[in-house]
Amino acid sequence: MTNHTPLPKGFTAGGINCGVRRTRPDLGLIVSDYPCVAAGVFTLNTCTAAPVRYCQQLLPSHDIRALITNSGQANAATGKEGGEDNLTLVNATAAALNLEANQVLIASTGIIGYRMALDKIIPAISSLAQQLTNMAEKFALAILTTDLVPKTISKTIKLSSGEITITGICKGSGMIHPNMATMLGYFLTDAVLDAKQAQKFLKEATDVSFNMISVDNQMSTNDSSFLLANGSSKHALKNANDEKLFAETLTEMSKFLAKAIARDGEGATKLLEVQVHNAADQATARRLARAVTTSDLFKCAVYGSAAYWGRVLAVFGQQDISLDVIDKSTIHFQDYLVYPPLKSNHAKADLDASMKQENIVVKINLNDGKENATAWGCDMSEQYVKINADYGT
Amino acid sequence: MTNHTPLPKGFTAGGINCGVRRTRPDLGLIVSDYPCVAAGVFTLNTCTAAPVRYCQQLLPSHDIRALITNSGQANAATGKEGGEDNLTLVNATAAALNLEANQVLIASTGIIGYRMALDKIIPAISSLAQQLTNMAEKFALAILTTDLVPKTISKTIKLSSGEITITGICKGSGMIHPNMATMLGYFLTDAVLDAKQAQKFLKEATDVSFNMISVDNQMSTNDSSFLLANGSSKHALKNANDEKLFAETLTEMSKFLAKAIARDGEGATKLLEVQVHNAADQATARRLARAVTTSDLFKCAVYGSAAYWGRVLAVFGQQDISLDVIDKSTIHFQDYLVYPPLKSNHAKADLDASMKQENIVVKINLNDGKENATAWGCDMSEQYVKINADYGT
Repeated sequence: MTNHTPLPKGFTAGGINCGVRRTRPDLGLIVSDYPCVAAGVFTLNTCTAAPVRYCQQLLPSHDIRALITNSGQANAATGKEGGEDNLTLVNATAAALNLEANQVLIASTGIIGYRMALDKIIPAISSLAQQLTNMAEKFALAILTTDLVPKTISKTIKLSSGEITITGICKGSGMIHPNMATMLGYFLTDAVLDAKQAQKFLKEATDVSFNMISVDNQMSTNDSSFLLANGSSKHALKNANDEKLFAETLTEMSKFLAKAIARDGEGATKLLEVQVHNAADQATARRLARAVTTSDLFKCAVYGSAAYWGRVLAVFGQQDISLDVIDKSTIHFQDYLVYPPLKSNHAKADLDASMKQENIVVKINLNDGKENATAWGCDMSEQYVKINADYGT
Repeated sequence: MTNHTPLPKGFTAGGINCGVRRTRPDLGLIVSDYPCVAAGVFTLNTCTAAPVRYCQQLLPSHDIRALITNSGQANAATGKEGGEDNLTLVNATAAALNLEANQVLIASTGIIGYRMALDKIIPAISSLAQQLTNMAEKFALAILTTDLVPKTISKTIKLSSGEITITGICKGSGMIHPNMATMLGYFLTDAVLDAKQAQKFLKEATDVSFNMISVDNQMSTNDSSFLLANGSSKHALKNANDEKLFAETLTEMSKFLAKAIARDGEGATKLLEVQVHNAADQATARRLARAVTTSDLFKCAVYGSAAYWGRVLAVFGQQDISLDVIDKSTIHFQDYLVYPPLKSNHAKADLDASMKQENIVVKINLNDGKENATAWGCDMSEQYVKINADYGT
């Protein structure tokens, strides 16, 4: 592993194996030298995990100093004892770092329904705290479950008052993991933000990125995304241009990481991008784009490199797109028009060849309005079944 | 194949290969000697196939004499030409049988988006009409697509005025087939029914049977179920007891056929039954039961014989079941309590062994009201992916 993702000024991070998982890193820690303005967005699954409920009541905050994450156990569906375990872990982290408990955020990912192995996790925190660096990779590795690759990105942008850095880290083989085990996203910046800005930028970026990916249409109990701004660059967003630049950069980074999750979906061999153009309203555009990425049948066709547009049209119907709109719609696969079907077959060989590529783009034009949306997913292979039939048994 | 499913009095049926598919039967015909009261229920997919739209405008009727079904081509997403092809096929069937066009119902199932091979189908109708018998099997074979087995049932019941017979035939490897190619159901009876009764009984039976199964959560463009009553027994439903007996028998037969579809789901190795008990309202009971049967993750766990109840709880959360209700719920797998989890593990070996059976029953008790619902599905195996990656390419 090469370390190529720097953290913003004033942040350090690390990850180690504490013994919950056999050998892979399973405990990660981020620490800020300065109090952070912090925002979070969380799963809409009502069966939320203990760490999610904890962070929801703590945020927004302007005094966050650390964020701990364990992988292998989700601390979801663990009842009152799960809430107590979560608090014990937060308190132990605060103690190891000489912080107050309400300066520590937490996320967990892994198997649902089992008590946390605190006897393994807690003794490891002090040692982990000694091994922090200014690079993101070790933390990024420690939060993985069935992911094949760590997912990080860092950008430095020039605001009107000077340079700031944003670093993003995430995990997840989709909205859901083998055991519903979670998309986790972390954005760190040395910019000066207020809590309202942080929440707004994070929410907007999440809506067009993480909230538009799906591996298997199942909502996790633990999904969480965080934005921590420690202000160490001393550069605030002074005007509308700065705000726009920051928001666009955060959104672009979120999309990059979201696509990395979809591409690393369980058993995935291809990244699937579905664009809906010219819908009557935004909700329709989003709903249709996401529905196509979650159709098992279409995902199997993509895996088989089959340009089976009938399965896309059937999703139209299931999503209540009216026959009138269907009649005026067009569908392109890889820039080839597939619907309405051409009478001649002269482009068929080119289309078939293009479906073997690793990035599949479906472009739907409803010709019914002005709203657009893009969603990402992956194909479905036999490997998806294998992973999920074997997991946790 | 043994012929063991008799048709009610006054009905004949048959099936042949007309050349759309290589060798398997692909054209089926049902004829009644007498005009039938006929009811139909159809897919809610807005992208309905031409035969569905045709039947929707024709029904209810009291003058139906024949029903033709082709397999291999769905005649869906075929535009105006598809509607014309459908009419041509209906007219040719009527002509071959000396009937009026509005005495003929039609259903199609197969690949979406291709014009019908009328040059093969139409010349075969007269020959098919010569080969009808009073058994259901040949028709049942002709309407299959990826189904492995034909699905038929016949019951004779004693009304207050005398005996009547109901015969049911269906196809479908779930709500959806490899190419969205359809659940089709046919119920024939020699009882005397009026159109209102026929519609009511069919709707009620469908709601608790076909509408409660899922193979892959995708709604077909061609789903159709029919009830034809030709009155040849001369026995009507004379009182509330007769109505109850008829309705219960039809419902029981519908459930039998619906379970046969789920068990024959693409790649399925196990039948999955999910019961929800004591929900606050009927909609919640149905929604939750269906959602569990459509969770790819849980279906993979069932395939792997894993008693992974965490995946069921995560569905609770996705379906907006509140934490309060989750806290007072219980979940049984195969009569073993799995949630809340027992402290001791003494029954674990028995539970694990029972998960290897071919029928898996999940019993959810929400302890939140009085409404119950049951849904059926199947497990998900690598074979599901193989079938759908290869199909239609």
